[in-house]
Amino acid sequence: MSHTHHNNALTLSELGQQVRLKGWVQKVRNLGGLVFIDLRDRHGITQLVVKPENPHYEAALKIKNEYVITIEGTVIERESKNKNLPTGDIEVDVSGLTVLSTAANPPLIIADQTDALEEVRLRYRYLDLRRPVMQRYMIMRHDITQAIRTALLNEGYYEFETPMLGKSTPEGARDYLVPSRLYPGQFYALPQSPQIYKQLFMVAGFEKYFQVARCFRDEDLRADRQPEFTQIDIEASFVDETDVQALVERVLSHTFKTVLKHELTMPFARMTYADAMRDYGTDKPDTRYDMLLKDYSALFAGCDIPLFKDKQAIKGLVLEAGATLTRKQIDQLTELVKKHHGEALAWLKYEGGALSGSLARFIDQTMQDKLGLKDGDILFVVPGSEADVAQSLGVLRETLARMFDLIPKDVYHVVWITDWPLLEYNEEDGRYYAKHHPFTAPADPDMLKHDPAQALAKAYDIVLNGHEIGGGSIRIHDQAIQKLMFKTLGLDDHEVKRRFGFFVDALKYGTPPHGGIALGLDRIVMLMTHTENIKDVVAFPKTQSAKDLMMQSPDSVDEDQLEALKIKVGE
Amino acid sequence: MSHTHHNNALTLSELGQQVRLKGWVQKVRNLGGLVFIDLRDRHGITQLVVKPENPHYEAALKIKNEYVITIEGTVIERESKNKNLPTGDIEVDVSGLTVLSTAANPPLIIADQTDALEEVRLRYRYLDLRRPVMQRYMIMRHDITQAIRTALLNEGYYEFETPMLGKSTPEGARDYLVPSRLYPGQFYALPQSPQIYKQLFMVAGFEKYFQVARCFRDEDLRADRQPEFTQIDIEASFVDETDVQALVERVLSHTFKTVLKHELTMPFARMTYADAMRDYGTDKPDTRYDMLLKDYSALFAGCDIPLFKDKQAIKGLVLEAGATLTRKQIDQLTELVKKHHGEALAWLKYEGGALSGSLARFIDQTMQDKLGLKDGDILFVVPGSEADVAQSLGVLRETLARMFDLIPKDVYHVVWITDWPLLEYNEEDGRYYAKHHPFTAPADPDMLKHDPAQALAKAYDIVLNGHEIGGGSIRIHDQAIQKLMFKTLGLDDHEVKRRFGFFVDALKYGTPPHGGIALGLDRIVMLMTHTENIKDVVAFPKTQSAKDLMMQSPDSVDEDQLEALKIKVGE
Repeated sequence: MSHTHHNNALTLSELGQQVRLKGWVQKVRNLGGLVFIDLRDRHGITQLVVKPENPHYEAALKIKNEYVITIEGTVIERESKNKNLPTGDIEVDVSGLTVLSTAANPPLIIADQTDALEEVRLRYRYLDLRRPVMQRYMIMRHDITQAIRTALLNEGYYEFETPMLGKSTPEGARDYLVPSRLYPGQFYALPQSPQIYKQLFMVAGFEKYFQVARCFRDEDLRADRQPEFTQIDIEASFVDETDVQALVERVLSHTFKTVLKHELTMPFARMTYADAMRDYGTDKPDTRYDMLLKDYSALFAGCDIPLFKDKQAIKGLVLEAGATLTRKQIDQLTELVKKHHGEALAWLKYEGGALSGSLARFIDQTMQDKLGLKDGDILFVVPGSEADVAQSLGVLRETLARMFDLIPKDVYHVVWITDWPLLEYNEEDGRYYAKHHPFTAPADPDMLKHDPAQALAKAYDIVLNGHEIGGGSIRIHDQAIQKLMFKTLGLDDHEVKRRFGFFVDALKYGTPPHGGIALGLDRIVMLMTHTENIKDVVAFPKTQSAKDLMMQSPDSVDEDQLEALKIKVGE
Repeated sequence: MSHTHHNNALTLSELGQQVRLKGWVQKVRNLGGLVFIDLRDRHGITQLVVKPENPHYEAALKIKNEYVITIEGTVIERESKNKNLPTGDIEVDVSGLTVLSTAANPPLIIADQTDALEEVRLRYRYLDLRRPVMQRYMIMRHDITQAIRTALLNEGYYEFETPMLGKSTPEGARDYLVPSRLYPGQFYALPQSPQIYKQLFMVAGFEKYFQVARCFRDEDLRADRQPEFTQIDIEASFVDETDVQALVERVLSHTFKTVLKHELTMPFARMTYADAMRDYGTDKPDTRYDMLLKDYSALFAGCDIPLFKDKQAIKGLVLEAGATLTRKQIDQLTELVKKHHGEALAWLKYEGGALSGSLARFIDQTMQDKLGLKDGDILFVVPGSEADVAQSLGVLRETLARMFDLIPKDVYHVVWITDWPLLEYNEEDGRYYAKHHPFTAPADPDMLKHDPAQALAKAYDIVLNGHEIGGGSIRIHDQAIQKLMFKTLGLDDHEVKRRFGFFVDALKYGTPPHGGIALGLDRIVMLMTHTENIKDVVAFPKTQSAKDLMMQSPDSVDEDQLEALKIKVGE
């Protein structure tokens, strides 16, 4: 059954050769008695020609799109060449033809451009994946994964597996549970990450570990989230923050070079969490364009603007050449800002030498000079709490950048976000939560003890073009500090013992300093392939309601399966 | 924090150099005022010496086993060299010493030899994994996995991921279920294998796929089974049985060469299922030694032996030099044979020119000549049904081989088992089951239709030293044959539609001929590391009752987790 060439391979160099090809019929045309067949495989397309005198002519006439065939024939020069195709100079004059598989008319067109609904694409995913664009996405995912792996192997990292049937932990997102048949009423949990296992590899002395790890979160989904996702999970011993960051820089640099022939600027930029929140209003700053947030509280202190009175923060941003925004558009932006907890959106246009907008009547010449708007600019200002102002302006900034096409294409800006708060206080629960996770080392253990609200973490996120693609930290390797951490999180001794007891125990037998990171593979692939939807880079994704439309899962199961688990379903 | 050398690296070539090392304290000795410390990392051990005049002397005296330390010092020549250690010619005269982590006395000794109970080893797995022998197992697992991957990548295979949250299918072993929160009463299932997904990759036109795939079976466990296990899952299009087999031979040959420096004999041996059952009494023949099963029905036809009367099969084997077996041992072997459904174990010793045993009184000189026993041999014969005789003699053969140490060490016999029956009939259910799985192609579709009991499959298993390490087949790529297969298995249309409907559908849009195999990674690693227990090659294994003793999972979960899933536990 073997073939001599893939369908991207034949050129004038093979003229006159006898070849065997295989593949799917992309298109059949009957032109002036000649039957032309475009034969597709994962590599490309070759044109076949069947002449009327050919004994296979009648068979060829019956062939339809998506039939699977093998052919033998001779490579001949084409009369009208196709410069867009690597094989465009030749065609194959068919001498033998076998239909391996017939095909019904597919419910979606096998081509890059499709108007099929997402539901149809997911239901017939095996056909959707035939589309060349999807093949490229999947193959790039493969290439990216292998490039990352190669880089880590070259650094002496071991690729180890960890269990999928783990234990439910109370911190973090909601777990997927797996009922135990042998211990009715008890459950395994699918891992949200191999965090504890990878730290145990360090306790065990392996020093350098990675895994292409499947992780699970039973959360309500967004466009860039799936219930199961893949992370490049990395951990190392005897390292500090800069060691882990430098490793990731080498790994990503190798990956971009190998897969995209793109040189990332090294070392990556660094920004503290505080600076990111101050200048970009987000911990995932997109640094491909400016339009930074500015503090206008001092500037407006002298003006008696009711909206700004007694506010914790008054911040804003200037959109150059943004005065073209219509009143309607500004109303929509105001809605957006309010949706993200901004109290109001004040604005000021400077256009044709005149000011307009909700702030205009408060601005005299001195103020105008201080603001320094250029003709055609617009200034937006949001008052409110620090957090609300930052969040709403961060979203406004991104929205304006997209509206005004300010984001350069094919550039990759990577930035480390450092100096994270260790904890966040939740007013509702009246307790602290770990900003990253409860194993993150404090920058200064004394701060954790005496002023937890101000304690910083040895934690770092990595942000690519405004998307978080990974996060990590140096871990606590001292049992006493780990206990203090749990105590600060308000976990009582009984709970700690039940959930993490063995892990606190593990720290007492000689644990090396260690740390690591987890990189979100799906998101990295999404950004490197310039897709907008995470589903495009997952072979068999679930819908936003966590359904597999092809398999029709989840689904009901046989009653005896539930009986074996001693499980009942009900309200 | 960086170190200059690993602990296996220093030799006389580095004499006089200033070095920084890190690791775990393997042993501390206080000899004549000098403190000697064996410093261990994953690479090896280096001896440190701290002299009384050293400012760190007092600190060194306090160091205990498993402390984590870093040191600086000078490489000096040892007075008494240790030829068993790569670093045995030198020691490091310590000038700086930092304790990174103290250690309590570990509950098991960190050395290859351990008398710790398995329960203790599993509970403190992070310490068990510190033992050098376990480090070697884990690192060999890593090496073997990478070697297999490299071979497949070199063959142009894509490594793709498939979902873990799949759908429960009625055929096969018991599924692990995952309750859906968004669809109460519905369940995902963890995959027993990515079988359907990998076939869909072929439908989608990717042609060559593999995955290091985690799979799950909620079955009662044996020593070489775990609830979750890893298989090298492979599928290719436009291939037949010999293509898949040749690929696997190249992959395994590369792996044995890379990891063990061992050349496997190529091509691997081949044996039909019928021959394996006839000659070895098992479909997993250990061909490292002979002692084949023989058919004695013709030979004993003339003798009036009540035990053998009207039996479907009378088969046996000759153990050379086996006459030393005592009556008590033979009684134990009889128990073993009966446990494996053998009706009885008849035996005949030929020793010092005389016959003895339960068959002796039926044997005259003519018979004796025909049997051709050599002095010291023993013949065992089992009567009964074909299947029972084969099974019990197969087990007897393996047991005798181990008792008499007939199995050569460090040899690897690989054999393909071919020409499998497609189906097996289950008397109890009154229906056929697929011998491999319901997607296996029949060797001859007409046989499936007209004489399913006799139909053979395009299936193959691969057996290494008597252990099945993989199985695969060419798949059905024709929708009509797939429907016939389901019908033969007694699955009604409704059931087929509900469970496999989309898959039968998928076959109609141009499916290439395809096939593949799944290799059991855990078992391959077990055989290549010469361990007896699959737990030794899994980082964090479960007990035979599917418990994780370290994590204490499965475990109870919070009531609100069950409420979110609308699940109740009860009888």
